[in-house]
Amino acid sequence: MSNAILLAPGPVQLHPEVQKILAHPMIHHRTPEFDAILARVLLNLKSFFQTKMPVLIQTSTGSGGMEALLVNLLNPGEEVLAIVSGKFGERWADMAEVYGGRVHRLNCDWGKPVDPSEVKKFLQSNPNIKIVLTQATETSTATGHDIKALADIVSKTDALFLVDGITAVGAYDIRMDEWKIDGLVAGSQKAVMLPTGLCFVCLSERAWAKAKVCKTPRFYFDLQKELNANQKGETYFSSAVAHIKALDFVLNEISKSGLEKHFAEQRRRADFTRALSAQMGLSLYSASPSDSVTALNVPEGLDGVKLREHLEKKYQVTVMGGQDQAKGKILRIGHMGYILDHHLIETMYRLALALKDFSYNIDPEKVRSLSTSWLEAHPLEQ
Amino acid sequence: MSNAILLAPGPVQLHPEVQKILAHPMIHHRTPEFDAILARVLLNLKSFFQTKMPVLIQTSTGSGGMEALLVNLLNPGEEVLAIVSGKFGERWADMAEVYGGRVHRLNCDWGKPVDPSEVKKFLQSNPNIKIVLTQATETSTATGHDIKALADIVSKTDALFLVDGITAVGAYDIRMDEWKIDGLVAGSQKAVMLPTGLCFVCLSERAWAKAKVCKTPRFYFDLQKELNANQKGETYFSSAVAHIKALDFVLNEISKSGLEKHFAEQRRRADFTRALSAQMGLSLYSASPSDSVTALNVPEGLDGVKLREHLEKKYQVTVMGGQDQAKGKILRIGHMGYILDHHLIETMYRLALALKDFSYNIDPEKVRSLSTSWLEAHPLEQ
Repeated sequence: MSNAILLAPGPVQLHPEVQKILAHPMIHHRTPEFDAILARVLLNLKSFFQTKMPVLIQTSTGSGGMEALLVNLLNPGEEVLAIVSGKFGERWADMAEVYGGRVHRLNCDWGKPVDPSEVKKFLQSNPNIKIVLTQATETSTATGHDIKALADIVSKTDALFLVDGITAVGAYDIRMDEWKIDGLVAGSQKAVMLPTGLCFVCLSERAWAKAKVCKTPRFYFDLQKELNANQKGETYFSSAVAHIKALDFVLNEISKSGLEKHFAEQRRRADFTRALSAQMGLSLYSASPSDSVTALNVPEGLDGVKLREHLEKKYQVTVMGGQDQAKGKILRIGHMGYILDHHLIETMYRLALALKDFSYNIDPEKVRSLSTSWLEAHPLEQ
Repeated sequence: MSNAILLAPGPVQLHPEVQKILAHPMIHHRTPEFDAILARVLLNLKSFFQTKMPVLIQTSTGSGGMEALLVNLLNPGEEVLAIVSGKFGERWADMAEVYGGRVHRLNCDWGKPVDPSEVKKFLQSNPNIKIVLTQATETSTATGHDIKALADIVSKTDALFLVDGITAVGAYDIRMDEWKIDGLVAGSQKAVMLPTGLCFVCLSERAWAKAKVCKTPRFYFDLQKELNANQKGETYFSSAVAHIKALDFVLNEISKSGLEKHFAEQRRRADFTRALSAQMGLSLYSASPSDSVTALNVPEGLDGVKLREHLEKKYQVTVMGGQDQAKGKILRIGHMGYILDHHLIETMYRLALALKDFSYNIDPEKVRSLSTSWLEAHPLEQ
């Protein structure tokens, strides 16, 4: 087990200290000890989201956060523009339809980012759009969208700009307030480096104003209820104590080193993965590769499903494959979580071993030495 | 810390093995290792719920499970009978109203169980009721309702009988299939002995039939989606891997010893608490004390809020106080979780010390020796 490596786009490897905290004896959420933790976490989440607005904690997966943004902000019958560039874009568009949205889908080819000028044109000719939905990074294609440019466009309209930042917030620079994002969600098993189980949701001032008059029924995901409870120093529902204690540790660590350094670590891993892949003759799937996850094209003629399973079974490296139209064609390597240099080197080395087992022309030892040299030539600034 | 005792009605003390499992390195939910765990857990949950029907896992607190039952089974405009015997009964009635239910509240005095014959009369004179809601144990008053009798009445009508078993399922005998319950929810931080973060939901056949035609919009809590994913060996959303691995351990342990023994452990703790309380001159708050949690009346003239805080601060025993109309008047001691005899003895001993500090006439050493004798006289059957 200690030899196993998990470089998926979530869940991610845990910090050893997080593992220890999760193993602590349980404490109750109505205790002074937990009160202090919650207060600190709610404060530090604001820096993590680069916002002055409250960030709320929900006990749910990231999809629950996507739902929370919709049920608090979308009235039935309102028009929605959904940027759909992969599986999670599809999910959010579907969800908006379930809640009564009249959804226009702006479909991008898989692996391609949306062209902001297309969004601008669409909004100009469809002034009734009340909500624009997008992923920051579409996890299924490892593709990053230009959130700053999109926010700039949408903030000049009456529409609210809602961003699924589940595979993005905390992994690279997403500026909630400065860029004028109206709704942003993050997930615990991503750049927050915790187990799956929590998500984090933040609304802009104009989103809160809409939430106050939004008629869609909601209870578990009612953000106003949670905000009111937070203002009394509590969560509205039972607090997920173990996760929140571990979150406190992670946010304190990030706050000590600074967000920029946290981002730089992930960018370095992404750069490493891109550089080594090129040297291994593996091209990138995405035209706009994200810093949180990289998708590599599986070489022509190789079965990506079998390659991924072989890498996992024989070499104990778990990365993700492709879904739907990308099934068998790509490998997705995550850059979030507690990742040390030897994990990076070993992943590329063992990937080379696995490729060689599939008769791909590669020298694993050379990959290992190239990996080591790259990392030594690109040290993290202290 | 090691001296601290947590006997709340959830979250509860964790089994040392659960603590270890939570500290394991993360694994991905799309791996053969996790597939095997999930399959076993879904099977064992059925025994835990005493049902042949599928039991679904949700990443949410118990309230998310209560919401799931409503949004899958309640059409807007339908009439609902809500048995309201405390805070959680109020919450569920409120939630049903949010989702468009025309809610009739059958209010019980706090600490009193509902009279099944009243429910029978109400349903006879209100044949349009489509949903009946109740807690099995109302956590805020430590009061158990007669679920078997209620199920017998409701199952003879067209209404679905939905039971919040969050502080009940796994703590004492609740028979989903045999008693004809239509919807049942349990929570992870209760008799399942895990941290907060998961809940478990089960529907009867007639409830599934209603779910198929129920028009209330739902996505995150759409049980049919989750059932379909389970039938493919997956969860629909990211699996809460750490919790589910720990759940696997707990359910295996319970399955080895048998549900009856698991129930007996909790009953013995409840009996102990009642017996010792009587010897300490503390009366019970509830006319129908539950086996999952006991509420003790704070002696006349003592401030229960201060007593509880003192017990926690000076003696490191966390139990819960009362809420709303019971605030300051009761102490609630939980019987679920990983509880050893010395926790029981120490809790009563330290409660006696705390009472003595408030000038209550009590001999803590005598309480300790009475506690020890009671437990020795009532050994757990092996």
